[in-house]
Order: sequence, then C-alpha cells, then structure tokens
Amino acid sequence: MSPYIDFEPIGLRGECPEGNSLLDCARSLGVCLVNICGGVGNCGSCKVQILAGKVSEVTGKEREHITVNELSRGYRLACCVFPETNCKVFVPAESLAVKQRAQVEGREIHVDPDPAARMYLLDLAPPSFKDLRSDADRIADELRDRYDLTDLMFDYQLLRSLSDILRKNNWRVLVVVYQGEVIAVLPEGSKSLGVAVDLGTTKIAMYLMDLESGQTLSSKGLMNPQVAYGEDIMTRMTAAQTDSNLAEQFQSLIVDVFNETIAEMCRQCGQCLSQVVNMVVAGNTAMHHLFLGFPVWQLGRAPYVPEVASELDIKARDLGIRIAPGAYVHLLPNIAGYVGGDHVAMLLASNISTETGVILAIDVGTNTEICLSNRGIMSSLSTASGPAFEGAHLQHGMRAAPGAIERFQVIEGKNTYQTIDNLPAVGLCGSGILDVLAQLYQAGFVDRRGRFMEHPCIRGEGREKEYEIVPSQGNGAAITFSQRDIEQLQLAKGAIRTGIEVLLVRHGISASELDKIIIAGAFGTYLDVSSAITIGMLPELPVSRVFQVGNAAGIGAKLALISREKRDEAQYLARKVQYIELAGDPDFTSVFAKSLRLG
Amino acid sequence: MSPYIDFEPIGLRGECPEGNSLLDCARSLGVCLVNICGGVGNCGSCKVQILAGKVSEVTGKEREHITVNELSRGYRLACCVFPETNCKVFVPAESLAVKQRAQVEGREIHVDPDPAARMYLLDLAPPSFKDLRSDADRIADELRDRYDLTDLMFDYQLLRSLSDILRKNNWRVLVVVYQGEVIAVLPEGSKSLGVAVDLGTTKIAMYLMDLESGQTLSSKGLMNPQVAYGEDIMTRMTAAQTDSNLAEQFQSLIVDVFNETIAEMCRQCGQCLSQVVNMVVAGNTAMHHLFLGFPVWQLGRAPYVPEVASELDIKARDLGIRIAPGAYVHLLPNIAGYVGGDHVAMLLASNISTETGVILAIDVGTNTEICLSNRGIMSSLSTASGPAFEGAHLQHGMRAAPGAIERFQVIEGKNTYQTIDNLPAVGLCGSGILDVLAQLYQAGFVDRRGRFMEHPCIRGEGREKEYEIVPSQGNGAAITFSQRDIEQLQLAKGAIRTGIEVLLVRHGISASELDKIIIAGAFGTYLDVSSAITIGMLPELPVSRVFQVGNAAGIGAKLALISREKRDEAQYLARKVQYIELAGDPDFTSVFAKSLRLG
Repeated sequence: MSPYIDFEPIGLRGECPEGNSLLDCARSLGVCLVNICGGVGNCGSCKVQILAGKVSEVTGKEREHITVNELSRGYRLACCVFPETNCKVFVPAESLAVKQRAQVEGREIHVDPDPAARMYLLDLAPPSFKDLRSDADRIADELRDRYDLTDLMFDYQLLRSLSDILRKNNWRVLVVVYQGEVIAVLPEGSKSLGVAVDLGTTKIAMYLMDLESGQTLSSKGLMNPQVAYGEDIMTRMTAAQTDSNLAEQFQSLIVDVFNETIAEMCRQCGQCLSQVVNMVVAGNTAMHHLFLGFPVWQLGRAPYVPEVASELDIKARDLGIRIAPGAYVHLLPNIAGYVGGDHVAMLLASNISTETGVILAIDVGTNTEICLSNRGIMSSLSTASGPAFEGAHLQHGMRAAPGAIERFQVIEGKNTYQTIDNLPAVGLCGSGILDVLAQLYQAGFVDRRGRFMEHPCIRGEGREKEYEIVPSQGNGAAITFSQRDIEQLQLAKGAIRTGIEVLLVRHGISASELDKIIIAGAFGTYLDVSSAITIGMLPELPVSRVFQVGNAAGIGAKLALISREKRDEAQYLARKVQYIELAGDPDFTSVFAKSLRLG
Repeated sequence: MSPYIDFEPIGLRGECPEGNSLLDCARSLGVCLVNICGGVGNCGSCKVQILAGKVSEVTGKEREHITVNELSRGYRLACCVFPETNCKVFVPAESLAVKQRAQVEGREIHVDPDPAARMYLLDLAPPSFKDLRSDADRIADELRDRYDLTDLMFDYQLLRSLSDILRKNNWRVLVVVYQGEVIAVLPEGSKSLGVAVDLGTTKIAMYLMDLESGQTLSSKGLMNPQVAYGEDIMTRMTAAQTDSNLAEQFQSLIVDVFNETIAEMCRQCGQCLSQVVNMVVAGNTAMHHLFLGFPVWQLGRAPYVPEVASELDIKARDLGIRIAPGAYVHLLPNIAGYVGGDHVAMLLASNISTETGVILAIDVGTNTEICLSNRGIMSSLSTASGPAFEGAHLQHGMRAAPGAIERFQVIEGKNTYQTIDNLPAVGLCGSGILDVLAQLYQAGFVDRRGRFMEHPCIRGEGREKEYEIVPSQGNGAAITFSQRDIEQLQLAKGAIRTGIEVLLVRHGISASELDKIIIAGAFGTYLDVSSAITIGMLPELPVSRVFQVGNAAGIGAKLALISREKRDEAQYLARKVQYIELAGDPDFTSVFAKSLRLG
C-alpha cells in the first residue's frame, strides 16, 4: 500500500503513489504549493516541515535552500522528498500558493474610543536651578495639575530612556498612561496604537488599531502555528503536560507569530513598534494558558479548573512580545476551563448584556460555546462538537481552503456546487458538508436517523455506503460522502443541539421563544442557516431570527482594546454568566440521543 | 624612573623597582595578596586585574590558572607580571589575604515588624464540580474573606507555577502579598526573607532579614566592584555616558555582586532564594541611577537633576536579580542629584523627623550629605568633600584596610599610633589623617592657615615640607605627611564645614544651639570627634553632643524593609526635606574661605 500523507494545516489527506514526490502528492490532492521552478529543486519555494513519518535522504539541492537549523527541525523541499511511510506534513503559509481563508471580519459595533492606554500631550518646563524636580516628577506633576491624575507609577524600562526622550523632544511629548502607570513617552504627533487578537485553536485574527480614533489600520488572518503539533487542543494539552520543552515551544510559536505579524502590520502602515502601547488577547482557556506558559494539566482532568479566570495584564516584555517596552498585554477573562475569553469577547461583540429579549449566542468550533441570555440572565456552556466542521475525520473533508466545496445543492437530481475561489473541487469544508447532509436528507437519500436509504445513487455496503459528489477527474480521486461521514456529522451537530436544549431546559423556555440566534465564527459565517435547521443542528425557527456575525471574538477583542467601558463589561460578563458543566448534567445522555436525529 | 603602581580598591600606591613583580611591589607597599605557593606561579591565588598600563607577556603558568575569558579582561597572576609602564591594578576580594574593613553595623532602632511584603497562611478547599473557581480566584477569595484584602493582582511568573505549588502542598500554603499583588506562594513553615542594601560608591553593606521577626540573619560588607573603573562617582558617570557598554557593565557588576552575596547569605542560613520576597536598596542618586541603568549625563551637568526622585518598585527579574520570581526591589527615594536614598535612609535611622530640638546629621563620604533639622523643619545639602578621607590624593593615604594607621597622637614629642588589625603600618586612613593634622596643629607644628611652621621636625621646602610619622623600615618607604596633604585635608574638611555653616545661616541659628550632631558612615564611625573639632571640621561643641551611629544608611534600608511605616516615612522625608543647592548659594565663596582655617 502506498504511504498516506496528511497535509496540515489545510487538512487534505491521501495516498502518495510510489515514485511520486511530496509535491506530486500535494498536487494530486489539491494542495497548492508554490513551485516557481516547476519542482526541480532550484527555487526553494516549496518548503514544508515533516512532522512525522520516514522520507528519503536530504539532497544537495535542499542543502542550498534550507539551513542546518531548519533541517534539524524537519524542513525539506516538497519536490525533493519521497515518502517511505505514512507522513504528516506541515505546509507553512509562505509555501501555500493560494492563501487559506481566515476569518477576520465581523459585524462591527460602534463605541466612542476611550482606550485603557490613554495619551496626554505635555509641554514641560525644562529643569533649572529654580526648579530641580526630577524628570519623572516633572511629568507626574504636570499630569496631576492638568489632567487630575494622581499616584502615578513609571515603567522601569521607560525610565531607562526617559531623560533622552524628553530632551530630544524639547520637553514637548505625548505621555501614555495605562492604569495608573506611565508606560510610554512618544514624540508629539505620534499615533498611539494597539493590537487586538482573536487567538483561536486553529486560526488567529490580528488587528492593528489607532487607539485614539478607534480605527482599524490593518488586519491579518493566519493559522495557529501550534496546529503542526496537533489539530485539537486536547492533543496539545497532553503534549505540553508531558514535555515541558514542548510547552515552552507552544508559547514561543505564538509569541513569534505575534511579533512577526505586528511588525508586518506596523511596516505596512508606516508606524513604529514603539507606538504599540497595548494589546488585547481573547482566546479559549486552553489557548490562553498555552500562550502564557501556564500549566494545563489541571485543565485536562476533572473538574477542569483554569489556573486563572480573571482578566490579566502582563508586561509584553515578560512574554517576549516586542512592542513598546512598557506596554501591557491584556487577557480577557475566562469563565471556566472550557469557556474562555473568546466567548466573553463574543458576548461583548453581541451586546448581549444590554439587549432585552431571549438571545442564544453560538460560536461553533471544535468546542462550541453557547450562551443563553434570558432577559439579561445568562448561562454558558461548552460542548465537544469535534473537528468535523473543520473537515477532519471525514473522508474528503478539508478546512475552508481554496478548492473546498462550500455550497452544495441537488437540483433536478444533479449535483451542483460552488468552491472557494472557484478552483477545481478538492474536498468538502464545513459549510459544504452541512449542505450535503441537508440536501441528501431532503432528497430522501438519508433517513431521520442518518442512515442511507436504498437508492441507485448510493453505492457500497454498511458503513462504507457512499454518495458521489464529484466524480474522479484526471489523477484525482472522486469526492464522496459516506455513512461514516454522516455519523461524524451527527455527533458534531448533536453536541451543539444538546447544548442548546440543556440551556433552554435550565431557563424553562421553549425554542420558539428565542428572539434571536447569533452565530459567530468562521464556520458560522459561511454555513447555510436552512441547512443547519434541516439537519437539526439549530431548532426550527424563522431564518430571519438567525444572525451570522462573523468573527465576533475578534470584534470583542477590538472593543476591549479601545473602550474601557467594554473592558469592564467583559470582566462583569465573566463574573455574571452562570457556567453550566455539561458533564454533570443529569439530562445529558437522553438529550444527546435525541439530538442526533436529523430534522 | 620606575613604574608607579596604584592598587585598588585598597588605595595603596607606589613605585615598582625594576625586576620586581607586581607581587613584590604589593608586598613592599603593604598590600597583602594571597600567595600560597610563595609567588612562583603554582597556586594561582594572587589573581589581579590590570586596569591600565603595559605589563610583561602572559606566561604559560598563568594560562594554567586563568581562563581565556579572564585573560581578555586583563586578569593575571601578580607573581608573574612585571610592569613596563605606570599601572592601575584591581585586587579582587578573594586575592586579598586580609579582608578590608567594611562597615555594616550601626546603631539599631527597634520597630515592630510590619513588612511591605506580608505573608498569609491559607488553607484552601480543593476544586470540585461544585466549586469550579480557578486556582487564582480561590486564593483571592480566601484573602478577601479571611484577611479583607481586595482587588489583588497576581504576578505573572508566579502564575506559571501556581497550580503545581498548590497541589504539591495540598492546598495549604503561605501566600506573600506586596502592595496589592500576590508575588509568592511558599510551603507552610517557610520564613519570608528580605534583603536590605546600602549601596555606596566605594562600599556595599548587605543584610538578610527575616521579615516576620525583623531579625537580621546575616550581614556582609563588600567593596563596590565599580571601584575598578574609577574611585569617584564622577569618573564613572563620565565613563557611563560616553560608553553605553560600560554603563551596562556598571549595572551588571552590581547585579552580579548582589546575586552572589544573596545566594551566599541564604546558603549560610540554610534558606532558599525563592523565600527572598523583597529587597530595599539605599544609594546615592548616582549609584541609584547606575544600578538601574538609568542615564546619568543629566546628573553630571547643571542643574544636576535626577531622572527619578520618588521611591521605585521594580521587579527583581527586570534587573536580573535572582530572588523569588515575583519579588520587587524597592529603591528609597532621592531628594536631589547629589542627595540620594542613602541620605534618606540615614535620616530614617536617625529618627530625625520625630525628634524635637535642633539636630545636625552628617554622612561623610566623597560627597558629604548634611541635614539640619530645626525642630522638624529640615534642609539638606551635599558638599564635595572629595576622597581625602578615603586616603586618596594623599602621599601615604589609603583606605581603612589592614595596616592603615587609624589613630595617631604625639605624646611627649613621640609619635604613637594604632593600625587596623595591629599590622605593621603601611599608610594612613581617614581617621588617622584627621588625628595627624589635629595633633600637629595642637603641637604648634602647623598654623591656623594650615602652614607648616619652621621646626626641626619639619623637613623639606615649600609644598614639599613634610613630617615623618613612621620612619623607613626594611624596603618600605617612610610614612610622611606633607604640606600638600594638609591642603587636601583642608579642602575636604572645609567643604563639610561650609555645608554646616550654610545650613545654620539658612535656619538663622548658631552652632551652640545644636542639641545633637549625628555622624554616620564608616569614616564617621572611626574618626576622633575631638580631632574633628580641633581642625574645624565640626563646630566647637561639647563632645557629648556628638553621636557616631555607624552605618545609618544600612540601618535605614533595613527599617524600610521590615516596616511599612518607616517606608512611608522615607517617602515623606524625601518630599519634606528642603534641598539646598550649594552651587547657587551667594555666601558660598566667603564661607568656604573661612572654613579652610583650622581651629
């Protein structure tokens, strides 16, 4: 049997026939690697990282393009590598010809900017024999007299250069104060900047903001580099707790990608890193802990408590993040071990605490967090929906990358579909999978229990039964949808529906009373709401009551960056929301069994 | 002419005749170097650092004992080195056969311990499905409920190990809180420790304290390693501002010596570094800035303003100081560019703010700081008394090292003296020099203006006139006291007396109204008060009104470490004391001219 290759973070998998290089294999699976020289080892652009498996020896051509250090970490040129066993291959973003779609946009909410990092223009009198105050006192006195700020501290690293900055700028400077501490002094006319981050298990969205205007100057979506060490967070947590070097590496992977991206965004906007005076990070509790280098083993075992739940302010330099030397990184508060700061950020962006009515807010992911607000009384829970919507564990599933089928319909018995970037179909991403199941159910090919019916279009036997979506073309395999795939999907959507039902029961209300369902997250943005209702992931409700808000966690992080009121609201929400531990719910099993059904 | 060698930090200087090694030269000058093998290059114990000058090539024997890294920094074996030009040689403490005297003791003041770093015993309930609070919240809630502490923050580095510490200690731990921040968690039964430091230009005194009992567990006196780069602070400041590498080195020299000494004191007391949860440093403004890596150029030019005057709390890890990861280093406040935290510490130890009456407090050094408290109204100034009392710039002067003459009297026309450690006399230290001048003045050998009279005991002409104190013995030169030396002493004592007179004038009081004169510092401890009055360094007053309190700056640092009230008092004193800039005083020149007079 030929080796089986798993390309991450795209999520495409398949066989590599003998004599085929990794580049050939990637091509046949629809993974678009950059290969300027056409795959003859001259350009060095198809660099990949071999995470697991045995491959052919390093060639001389590779040594020309790959450093010794990179080689030791498994970097190779895909065109020069021939797999000898099953392999797991990580494709760095720069080697991907067509960039992956990462959700950075979301429904914006207007707030008047009032950032925690406030800037003040000072025009100071220079020292003289009649006025011998120290440089720091001179600033503190002026902030007290003109802006009524008292008891200020000064950041140590700032003090190391304060005298020079003041004198170089002729005593006219912008002073940035953060929670009673002077953290930066900038030349007059500088913008003060901040960075908001939605730190997801799979994807990261980053925003460079002008703190005074509240404007987004730049935004970037990128893959979480930790994906190379495990797609799901449990794998990474287990790895981190058994190998402390790996735990450190997990942290530095994130720090490095933050540093690179912030530097790039600043460069593009013609701004300096020293102007970045605050950063807000929203992540789930596990990502929060892995990013901060906190122990995670207590998160992984009952009763799954976080080490820290409250909001945190940590000096960027303590984390190795290269922005203004005195700047803080603010971590949004966690609610519980599996309901983190990203959920709080979503609630913030949903305005859930101020809206009246009955609102359900859902952020679909490997873990799906759901909040029910019943006229301001809020409960949240997390449900293990698994990676099926990310395309994992499905025969032809993949992430939302170019070539993925994202929409599917059976029209007059004919499969019609739409792919990302209109490229030839290479697999099915989450929204496409949802459509396929809904359409097959509506067409009567699948029954309510999720079983394929007898039908000429359905081939194979038992759990191997499958429906062909795209026939085999050239050397690519056919794209099919199998009985096993349906089971995976049922587990995923069943978990979400269970969470919704448990919340409704706890609040004593019925689904029809819901005024609004807010669906956040990348998958949530692209899914077809009718399909989601058809397969029973969402309760039956008029489609008009469902709002797809995009990256609400990212928006929430931005709000906490530019508005002190919103930041306070986040802390308030984290305390106010009642957390429900699904593992301890007595109705869980029976509700879950019912939730597996379609329709 | 033979090369002239300057041995630091002892302060002994002299010629090195041709064919003599550095070890021979040291021996003849009375510098006691360790030399187990007798000076044949076998033991490696006479290691010295060549700071300036040209010497013979490195020998094979030296390469056996000195690392390449040390060689590159000028380290050599004194027995193998033959000077070719004038040299400046630094003798590390470990190469000195008889350790230098460093003042660490002082008149203790009792305070009830109430340290800024407070320790609380917590007995926490472990988490369960019924109590899902995070580890940090569990601690914060208990501190709120049992000890009424609210709005606590947690140190980031502490959080990185918090979960483990709590579980390893079965949820029963000692929690250390510092100014609203949880900075350490220790096993039950641990002592919480602190380190107080008097960071002088020449000498450093360090104390390891038990914060709960207020007891001093260990104390050490050591040389400031920066002395190798310049005895006086002006030289170092000039060097630091022209060479930023040197500025960094000045900082790391101090940090390294702190780390070594703290580790040594902890080892000796059987305690761990992780128990050291706070450190207080009192230094003059320049040492404060050099230790913190702050720019010093603005300190060196008019109007001589410090960058920071207020008290500071800096994370020990930001300074590279290895104590508890969350611990802070507290810097006592400075008053002005030349009146620093060591002066504030001295005032603290003098109880000057609570005592009634008219009190003068003097800390004699290269810069002498003087405070006059007129029934609670306080003024301070600094006067450039120079290094004469440290033995510098005097022909046979030296620091208070073994063999230095520290007491001198002419009894029935015969010189009688006492040396440190009763070793053969090798030079004169500060207190000895003072006695010599007083005795010669009283004996009528010197007139009021400081001129040698015509007398058979006085030999030489003009400024080369000299009085022999110890005749030449063996290959050692005679120890003499010259007209030039008198001039140096007059400048030094005149500067101090000027400071005193300016303060008295400003407060409109006469010297006779002084209820008390407090003299602090090493030299101040050993000087003979009558001699000081005889030569006019101090105004004429009954000797009983003068109190020699020892290392008051060290005592003050200790007080600020173990008492929050005393720490607040330091900040209050720094603000309350009126600073007088002597450079701007209109009467300065005339007062100084008068103050040069003896008697």
